Amino acid sequence: MPSNTNFADRLIERTRALGHPLCVGLDPHLAAIPEFFRRGSMAPGDERTAAVVEEFLGAILDRVAGRVAIVKPQIAFFEQLGWRGMRVLDGLCRRARESNLMVLLDAKRGDIGSTAEGYANAYLTSDAAMPVDAITLNPYLGFDTLEPFARAAREAGRGIFVLVKTSNPGSGDLQDRDVEGEPLFGRVAKGLVEMEEDLRGPKTGWSSLGVVCGATWPEQAHRVRQTLGKALFLVPGYGAQGATANDALQTFVPGPKGREGGIVNSSRAILFPESARTAGAVKAWEAAIDEALDRAIDELTTATQI
Amino acid sequence: MPSNTNFADRLIERTRALGHPLCVGLDPHLAAIPEFFRRGSMAPGDERTAAVVEEFLGAILDRVAGRVAIVKPQIAFFEQLGWRGMRVLDGLCRRARESNLMVLLDAKRGDIGSTAEGYANAYLTSDAAMPVDAITLNPYLGFDTLEPFARAAREAGRGIFVLVKTSNPGSGDLQDRDVEGEPLFGRVAKGLVEMEEDLRGPKTGWSSLGVVCGATWPEQAHRVRQTLGKALFLVPGYGAQGATANDALQTFVPGPKGREGGIVNSSRAILFPESARTAGAVKAWEAAIDEALDRAIDELTTATQI
Repeated sequence: MPSNTNFADRLIERTRALGHPLCVGLDPHLAAIPEFFRRGSMAPGDERTAAVVEEFLGAILDRVAGRVAIVKPQIAFFEQLGWRGMRVLDGLCRRARESNLMVLLDAKRGDIGSTAEGYANAYLTSDAAMPVDAITLNPYLGFDTLEPFARAAREAGRGIFVLVKTSNPGSGDLQDRDVEGEPLFGRVAKGLVEMEEDLRGPKTGWSSLGVVCGATWPEQAHRVRQTLGKALFLVPGYGAQGATANDALQTFVPGPKGREGGIVNSSRAILFPESARTAGAVKAWEAAIDEALDRAIDELTTATQI
Repeated sequence: MPSNTNFADRLIERTRALGHPLCVGLDPHLAAIPEFFRRGSMAPGDERTAAVVEEFLGAILDRVAGRVAIVKPQIAFFEQLGWRGMRVLDGLCRRARESNLMVLLDAKRGDIGSTAEGYANAYLTSDAAMPVDAITLNPYLGFDTLEPFARAAREAGRGIFVLVKTSNPGSGDLQDRDVEGEPLFGRVAKGLVEMEEDLRGPKTGWSSLGVVCGATWPEQAHRVRQTLGKALFLVPGYGAQGATANDALQTFVPGPKGREGGIVNSSRAILFPESARTAGAVKAWEAAIDEALDRAIDELTTATQI
């Protein structure tokens, strides 16, 4: 499929083919990287640390290629390593896309006017310096600030996932506040309706306008689904954050191959399973990652069929 | 002053010494960089483009060093150039700090838990890979998500500027919504009160918890000042966005050297004045930048004394 094909169509067709919506989050927590990958001081500014992260995540990509539709690097963990971390991220994104993995950059960007255009040019446009398939965005600055991203999504076949209801304990501080009779996150969802309609894929009907809605808040997620019937949901919180596969799929709807409507992210449970921590060498570590991946895929495949 | 001294104390003492609160925004719009700096295709992904931006902003730093307290690179314009842009940003921040310019990174970051810690480690902690003096933050994810940044600010003498009311036309979409009898941005300001108290500097009493409040919204800015009496204001919108020096200083209060209480940013009016666009060579360009800088400094110095 040409890469400027509608993002949602590409993603949904791939998850249908695989039979599950698992997204693997690439959050390289330095302290959790196994001993046999480690070199040097492991200080974030040490260039050897960037090389370790590159090798570790490259090995992860080798495990997940062909098994999931999409990976989600969390850019903060790369920025933490300085510009060398960004170079690692760039290489990782290219390598993932060459392996037929789509890339959702978890960047939660948001800014005004020409600055928003700068971010869109960085990651989403067809001549972006570091092209990815989709990006997460923060809506606090207003709906006009999402426009440059929506335009790039439309023109280059990319996706955008707007933060609506996040999975953290303090997410209610602002997101749940009552705004003229409804919670703020509901107001955000309503503000996205036109964009959702505009970015629907011709093949599947799903929209390249996605939302981030934590699996830890079922009622709120249901409410957002009512407003945005064809938005893709990026569901964090599955695995290490305590939500079950069924919780994670609660906003998914019946499709030709089972329930569909988004992707379910797992980071720590795949990258750092308990059994991988105690692995002394590559083979045992690979087996531990494969086992963690099998478990998540099995759970989600089963839940998709319910 | 040791660099782990309270950020607000360092900033206010410097602006008092200079007699004005001008902050120069480093937003390298590629299309606006004068002809004699340009090389190659000027495409964002071309490595020669990163070299052009480095040279252009290096020349700008030479003009502003010793004349302003602080510069504000907008990270989107560097991310736009890929990892090479981040390497340019890193060098620029180091060069600025060596020239006794403080650096406020305009990144508008915001994320949960360990990811927020990742961003704090990237830019604010004492062993950050790319250390800056302060950073801008987005509060939509909740007040708990600001904690890692506040902790780094306290421990390493850094500053944080939280988006409260932005200068763009659509800022009202969410920020002005009525939440239980007050606008959302007012609720954000109230949520910052404890942090503001906690981060006050022992010398000046000003707080290293700052807020972003556009000069284009005078009433709203006044309201935020009432809630956060000692917060530093980062005021965008002066110069190219149409606000006057007096508008920009409306939340400032009398101090030992005139009105004080924050910084006033100007980007395009300093980096890309009309007269610099037509300059054919370095000397004429330098004169044009100096003239633009003189004008802004004169205006703000005068307004500070009113």
